Amino acid sequence: MLVHATNDGTVPVRYISSDYAHCFTFSVCSLVARQDSYDRLMASFAAHGFTGENTEFLAADNRNGNDFDGYSWTRRLVSECRGKYVIFCHDDVELIEDGFDKLRVQLDELTSTDPDWLLAGNAGGRVGWQDIERVRRRNAVTIKDRYGDRHAGADPVRVETLDENFIVMRRDRLVLGSLDLGGFHFYGPDLCMMAEIVGGTSYVIDFSLRHHGSGTRGPSFRSGRTDFARKYGRFFPGRRVWATTGEVLLGDEQPHHHAFGTLGLDAQPIKNGEH
Amino acid sequence: MLVHATNDGTVPVRYISSDYAHCFTFSVCSLVARQDSYDRLMASFAAHGFTGENTEFLAADNRNGNDFDGYSWTRRLVSECRGKYVIFCHDDVELIEDGFDKLRVQLDELTSTDPDWLLAGNAGGRVGWQDIERVRRRNAVTIKDRYGDRHAGADPVRVETLDENFIVMRRDRLVLGSLDLGGFHFYGPDLCMMAEIVGGTSYVIDFSLRHHGSGTRGPSFRSGRTDFARKYGRFFPGRRVWATTGEVLLGDEQPHHHAFGTLGLDAQPIKNGEH
Repeated sequence: MLVHATNDGTVPVRYISSDYAHCFTFSVCSLVARQDSYDRLMASFAAHGFTGENTEFLAADNRNGNDFDGYSWTRRLVSECRGKYVIFCHDDVELIEDGFDKLRVQLDELTSTDPDWLLAGNAGGRVGWQDIERVRRRNAVTIKDRYGDRHAGADPVRVETLDENFIVMRRDRLVLGSLDLGGFHFYGPDLCMMAEIVGGTSYVIDFSLRHHGSGTRGPSFRSGRTDFARKYGRFFPGRRVWATTGEVLLGDEQPHHHAFGTLGLDAQPIKNGEH
Repeated sequence: MLVHATNDGTVPVRYISSDYAHCFTFSVCSLVARQDSYDRLMASFAAHGFTGENTEFLAADNRNGNDFDGYSWTRRLVSECRGKYVIFCHDDVELIEDGFDKLRVQLDELTSTDPDWLLAGNAGGRVGWQDIERVRRRNAVTIKDRYGDRHAGADPVRVETLDENFIVMRRDRLVLGSLDLGGFHFYGPDLCMMAEIVGGTSYVIDFSLRHHGSGTRGPSFRSGRTDFARKYGRFFPGRRVWATTGEVLLGDEQPHHHAFGTLGLDAQPIKNGEH
């Protein structure tokens, strides 16, 4: 893959081909604030087929305070990854049933079905949600959490946003998030908008896990949503986006009834934020 | 920077901080089609302060055919880079005067002036070009080529596009190009559009080099421009962009007088394509 040669400039050169040299099947990247949660995550991955041979584990270290925010950690960790697929997950997810083989098969099949896929997750707002009357149905969710067990189905579902608890990307088709947004909210939807702009698609796939914890939602959620809406209003003026946390009208103004909470929020309290 | 630990899952974990571990000041990445051109580039960099200690050299290997196109090679090489600043240049540039120290100082100062800068080059279309009547003045160019020696000045100039012969980015604020565009044209303007969308700025800086060769411009140039215009018309409908190759109206239709060649093209024949 890499050929080292010495030029007449006496400086070594690496000649690189277009073929990515993946060292692992997965890079599992986690935003780690709590050691006990992360120990549970690690044990569950190890118990479900992820080994040191097929997987590398990287932790964005927030154990001693918020060195990272939601937007910065994915950028930093992709610069270290060497896996074919890069998983970004919260420290409080736990594998309970599906594991390495299932995830690899789901992603390989997704690549066959849609070579342009860039992001895959377990909870997101469906493409075409505007035509779905029942608010609950606007999300595609495959997750077990304190609100129950949900399963969006065996087939991948196209989504326009993804929740941050679990997102996979392809190292040979990376998506980088915004540099002009910050905080712990809406970085999943931000990645999805960037995936769309860069030229690809996002899906919820059939991979189930348990998501512990409960999201916080307060002033930081609202300001994160305002910033996200304002930013993408520049590129998609007037567009309405469905996130797992509810509807967002892209642009400077949020309708009053969107200012905080919607039926969707209460019915689908997928967490999206600090934990 | 990296702490290795073993979790109870028996799999090693790397805990990573937000501080990027740069191994070099520069990663010099080149799209290499011709060995003789590249040997000249290498010798000139070695003669102007770039050493194996402060710089790594990476070549996207097109010596035996086009393994890469303009859009794919920057994505592939950033996955290998370990420098603070990542240079993307054609294989036919040659340092003749300015070198390592000058470039580092220019970039460090640019960071002080505008912490949000993402791309720096030597030729681009000025922000605010619409108000500049003389076509030549719409470009900011610091380059020596077969059309003469030009120098845009000592201060950085904000641009909305950059020519591909020489573009620098920051490894801790990477910009990735489109996945739905291809070919050898407009990948510099594509990076600039992406830089703008991701939340940053582009500049022409005071760093002079010689650019050998002459661009080709034919059907592939025109189709590349059409694809670029159509894509970004989705996000900036009706916007007019000035590239070093002339004006582009973003959207599905190019005005007839833009279909091929403008005064800008002829007056400022900065190459932009295969070589």
